[in-house]
Amino acid sequence: MGKAQERKIARMPLYMDQHKNLEGLTAQAVEEAHQKDLETQDEYGVNYHSYWYNEEKGEIFCLVEAPSEEAAQAVHREAHGLTADEITEVKKGS
Amino acid sequence: MGKAQERKIARMPLYMDQHKNLEGLTAQAVEEAHQKDLETQDEYGVNYHSYWYNEEKGEIFCLVEAPSEEAAQAVHREAHGLTADEITEVKKGS
Repeated sequence: MGKAQERKIARMPLYMDQHKNLEGLTAQAVEEAHQKDLETQDEYGVNYHSYWYNEEKGEIFCLVEAPSEEAAQAVHREAHGLTADEITEVKKGS
Repeated sequence: MGKAQERKIARMPLYMDQHKNLEGLTAQAVEEAHQKDLETQDEYGVNYHSYWYNEEKGEIFCLVEAPSEEAAQAVHREAHGLTADEITEVKKGS
C-alpha cells in the first residue's frame, strides 16, 4: 500500500455494521460474501476489515472503513445484495 | 504470555458484546471502564480485546474471549457495573 493510500484510509470514518436473522447462515456463505465485498469495494473507496459471525443466530458484524454509511452499504448491495440491518460509526478504543 | 496460557485462551469462546443508549458517553469514560475490565478480568479467566464506541449514540462494542457469557458479564459488573445489553458468541472471519 502506498503512502497516499494509507493517508486516505486513515482519514475515513470507521463503521461497525450488523446483519441479523440470516436464516441458514454458514461460515462458507459469509466467507464468500466477504470475498465479493473485497472484490467490489475499490470502486466505492471502501475498505472492509474484519468480520465476526454466529451461524445459529444468523448474525454478522463487519468492521469497515468507508467515506460514508451509504458507500459501505452500496458495496454490500452490489456484491451480494445483503445490506446491513444496522450500521454505527465508531472509533476504535486504545 | 506463557505457552500454557496461550493455549487456554485459544480454546475459549469469542463474544461480541454491545452496550446501548449510554447517555453522556465520552471516550475517556469508555477508556477508564475498559482499563477496569483489564484489571478485573484475570480472576474470571476473561480476556477483553478491542472495543469500538460511538459517543453520540452511546454505544460500545467489546470483543472478548471468555469461558462463558456470564464470565464476560461478571467482569463488567465487578469492574464498573455496566453490563452489556446484548452478547453474541462469534467466530472471527478469515
